[in-house]
Amino acid sequence: MLQAALRRIAGEIETTLDRLMPVPDGGEARLVEAMRYATLGGGKRMRAFLVMETAALFGVDRTCAARVAASVEMLHAYSLVHDDLPAMDNDDLRRGKPSTHKAFDEATAILAGDALQTRAFEVLAETDTHSNPEARAELVLALAHASGARGMCGGQMIDMLGEGKTLTAEEIGRLQALKTGRLIQFSAEAGAILGRAPAHQRHLLAGYGRDLGTAFQIADDVLDTVGTEAEIGKTVGKDAASGKATMVSVLGVERARAQAEMLAKQAAAHLDHFGEPAALLRQLADFVVSRRS
Amino acid sequence: MLQAALRRIAGEIETTLDRLMPVPDGGEARLVEAMRYATLGGGKRMRAFLVMETAALFGVDRTCAARVAASVEMLHAYSLVHDDLPAMDNDDLRRGKPSTHKAFDEATAILAGDALQTRAFEVLAETDTHSNPEARAELVLALAHASGARGMCGGQMIDMLGEGKTLTAEEIGRLQALKTGRLIQFSAEAGAILGRAPAHQRHLLAGYGRDLGTAFQIADDVLDTVGTEAEIGKTVGKDAASGKATMVSVLGVERARAQAEMLAKQAAAHLDHFGEPAALLRQLADFVVSRRS
Repeated sequence: MLQAALRRIAGEIETTLDRLMPVPDGGEARLVEAMRYATLGGGKRMRAFLVMETAALFGVDRTCAARVAASVEMLHAYSLVHDDLPAMDNDDLRRGKPSTHKAFDEATAILAGDALQTRAFEVLAETDTHSNPEARAELVLALAHASGARGMCGGQMIDMLGEGKTLTAEEIGRLQALKTGRLIQFSAEAGAILGRAPAHQRHLLAGYGRDLGTAFQIADDVLDTVGTEAEIGKTVGKDAASGKATMVSVLGVERARAQAEMLAKQAAAHLDHFGEPAALLRQLADFVVSRRS
Repeated sequence: MLQAALRRIAGEIETTLDRLMPVPDGGEARLVEAMRYATLGGGKRMRAFLVMETAALFGVDRTCAARVAASVEMLHAYSLVHDDLPAMDNDDLRRGKPSTHKAFDEATAILAGDALQTRAFEVLAETDTHSNPEARAELVLALAHASGARGMCGGQMIDMLGEGKTLTAEEIGRLQALKTGRLIQFSAEAGAILGRAPAHQRHLLAGYGRDLGTAFQIADDVLDTVGTEAEIGKTVGKDAASGKATMVSVLGVERARAQAEMLAKQAAAHLDHFGEPAALLRQLADFVVSRRS
């Protein structure tokens, strides 16, 4: 049931992304091609799923929710394009395809990431996203908060500086919370913002997103250690090879896996308040720690 | 009078930027240091000046206008950081100092540019920027429009692809309109958005900004040809060295200068409607084509 829902929403978001992305045209066509290459046709679309499913809890119009979901996926795609650059993680493979700077070139990849970030904020601010401008401004604010210097970019900086250093579990926890956690948390909160939900409901979804994000990241570290390249579609064992500290290097595979499972249960507990309509979101928490790719 | 006003507003924006920028702290301190390095202590702040002076036409609260002005300067600073990268224009010098990737490193410069863009949109969406959420969402939308794939990023892509090619005056015109024109136009329109001005007044300021931006860019090409490194604080003659087509390479110095002067007059003419309160904006149009640095 979860797998079918994930696939259905991934398809829906693919269509929305395709419609919201510029069309290659004029002298800048190459930039637009790179933006589309980096964004379309790939990924589990977990962040989009979170937006769609939390928005559904409040009966938000599906077209509006899909725009926000697409916006989060653009933001996420931009971060992957820049993280893969030679000066950053230097990764040649992404979602089983050459990463953007390999398929195009470095300058184009830098610009495509830049323009994807811009487009993400633009879509949120467009009137079609929500009839209430307060909601649109709040979405921009929350996404910026999740992805800036005190969020995703800050996490990536800590990650870069941590290479070859021994970090404590606490330091790794903060790194991962910033680098991937905040955007996942935003995705889960977005439904509440779109639905103009009361603060306590928004906080419950934020708590769910926070725990889910942490569980997801630890599970990702475990996969990086035990997975194979064919299964996960990107270079594996990179963290160990580059001397990056992860929860696995600090706790070992078994304890890391146990902690991810504990967090997934904790994530699901935040959803008790929402009853049966939150069933898929509960299943997702279970899925992120049991997946093999 | 213009010089004094430019200096006063530059000082005001410096203070605002300093307050709006994160404080170096935690594991991500290096990122914040690079963001501050790239943004503080430099530049003529022409874009900030445009926001402040057009906002003053409508009696907009100065603190609110300064936030928007700071946001445009962050956006502009991010574009300079990324444009200077080795994979892009490979420029070691900016505003008389080592460019950000030289003072820090490439990874930090990429991330600092990314986080500066994010912060620019965040500031616009914050409630302190305008009490009306419609105005905040409109500012985000207009800045995104000016700086994305169909604006600044698109212009930089065309610029990169044009190296070593012969472009027509028309192609160079579009390149420059996208690369620098749109952001200057946004800066001039921002006052009207903040002031909730009627459409015809916003269009007049947009027209002023568009012509001013074009005049500014042509004057910049002239300076790049005839200026000295000490005067303008960045590497000169780079365009010719890298085989980049500019209005000077197509029209020659004298005709390019004449065209810039014609555009500056045309820019000023859009301001007739606003009378005496627009005097400084008129002087700016004159200044951008007569400056020596």
